[in-house]
Formats: sequence, C-alpha cells, structure tokens
Amino acid sequence: MSDEGVRHAVRTRWGSPAVAPGPRRTVDLDPAEALRLLAGVSLGRIVFTRHALPAIRPVNHVVVAGDVIIHTHEAAALTEQVERVGAQGIVVAYEADVIDADTHLGWSVVVTGYCRLITDPRDTARYRELVRPWADQRTDVLVRLHPDLVSGIRLTGPS
Amino acid sequence: MSDEGVRHAVRTRWGSPAVAPGPRRTVDLDPAEALRLLAGVSLGRIVFTRHALPAIRPVNHVVVAGDVIIHTHEAAALTEQVERVGAQGIVVAYEADVIDADTHLGWSVVVTGYCRLITDPRDTARYRELVRPWADQRTDVLVRLHPDLVSGIRLTGPS
Repeated sequence: MSDEGVRHAVRTRWGSPAVAPGPRRTVDLDPAEALRLLAGVSLGRIVFTRHALPAIRPVNHVVVAGDVIIHTHEAAALTEQVERVGAQGIVVAYEADVIDADTHLGWSVVVTGYCRLITDPRDTARYRELVRPWADQRTDVLVRLHPDLVSGIRLTGPS
Repeated sequence: MSDEGVRHAVRTRWGSPAVAPGPRRTVDLDPAEALRLLAGVSLGRIVFTRHALPAIRPVNHVVVAGDVIIHTHEAAALTEQVERVGAQGIVVAYEADVIDADTHLGWSVVVTGYCRLITDPRDTARYRELVRPWADQRTDVLVRLHPDLVSGIRLTGPS
C-alpha cells in the first residue's frame, strides 16, 4: 500500500464518521471468548514498564495452547528486561482490538501475565514459522506470555 | 455491523495474509509527523500502571494544540488515579496505530506525559462536543495528556 493508501485507510477506518452513532453498551467477555478473539488476529500491543514509565509496542502474535507467542525486536526494551530477569519473567499486558470507526462496534481483549524468552531450539524453530516478524530482520526474539488474567469487552448496540 | 460483520473485518483486516510480504523497514517519525498522524485518527489506547501491573484501555481522543484530549470512563481505574493525585497528574502513555494486515505497511505513534483531569467548565463543554464517548453513558470524564515524549515509526517497503 502506498503512503496515500495508508492515509486513505486511516480516514476510512478510524476517521470520524459523518453521523456518530449513539454510545455503545460495554459487555464483558468471558475469558474463553476473549482468547478466541485474540487468536483470530495477528497484531496486538505489548505493554510493560520501562524506567518506571509505561511503554507500549505493536507486535505480532499467535495463540498456542492458551499462551500468547510474540515476536519482538532483540534490541527492544522489553527483551532487555526479559533477558535480565531470566526464568522468573516480567509481568506484561497484551492488548488487541477490532473496533469499527463508523459503527463503533467491536471488541478489545487484554491479557496480563508473566512474559519469558523462548529458548528451547525446537520451540524456537516451530514458532518462527508460525509468527513471522513484520519489521526488520533484526526482529528476532520470541517471548511467551502465559495469561494469568484475561479480560475483554464487546461494544454492542442498544439492547 | 453484525457480529458476523465484525468477525469478517477481523479476518480481512488483521488475519494472516495468504502470502506474507517480506519484513518491513522501521523508519522513525519526527514528533511533528507523529502528532499529525495521531490527530488524524480517533481511536487509541491509554497505558498506565494499576496496582503495580501494566494496564491498557481503548478510548477515543482528539488532539488540540498538541495535547491529547481523551474521553474515559468515570469509574475506570485510570480516572480514580488521576482524581487521587489531582493537579500533579500521573504519567501515562497513549498509542495509536494503523497497520495493514496484508501489506504490513503503516505506522504506530506513542506519546508519553502527565495526564490530568479537565475540570474547567468551559473546557469540559468544548471538549465534550469534540470527543464523544463511544461506550456507555457513564463514559463521562475528560483527561488531558500533555506529551513530553513523542515517538513513532513507519513500516515501509525495502529501500
């Protein structure tokens, strides 16, 4: 897609609609449904703390046996932290959403839990096939997030 | 959009493409361009710390004179914190992105800074018109994020 194409996508996907629909009801998703929705998309955002500040990066993922497998940049701030603490892991949140800019219908899912580097060579080889990095050849590290908390909402029309 | 429509949007927007393009180059955006892109969309995600855990909520926003004005839920965890600390504000990050699931082209912008409740009645009335809440009538509080850090990336094709 050209830059103009991206800008067009911005306007049509997320731009303000000519006539805004009324406010949407927020319905909590049960964890199984939330994980199913997360597994159906490939882009999300990993949320962590860096130098005592909140940080967020868009990355791509797959869901395997209830764990979220994420491909991230080996030099990224997150990876440095995960490498430093080792097996203990660090607590991160991971979010994905699909919300229609015109109808304001959609959903958002957040999972929270310990995030650890994947170091087993068989796992690494397997997941490298499943979750290809989007940006740069340097995007070379896989992490596994085991969700301890799973929450989600669906934005729906009036009952 | 029906539930089926939302699921269709998931598949077409974020689903895995049949033939994945090669990894994209990551180009840093200058702050002015990053803020311009953020101002061109209406949905983002606010990132903060709650009970020492990373937290994230999708919300809608407008950019006014370089500040990000966000409509959020009065009972939400973020608002409780902002109300507690008062004028001092709390540090949050705010992210928006548009990344095409097929071409893997697009951008992501993150701004970080102090977040404060908007209490001035004239500002409140003005911003309520500009940034209408998407979810529930209870979504009733406006906050202002003054970006101290602005960063962004563009995912582009090979040079």
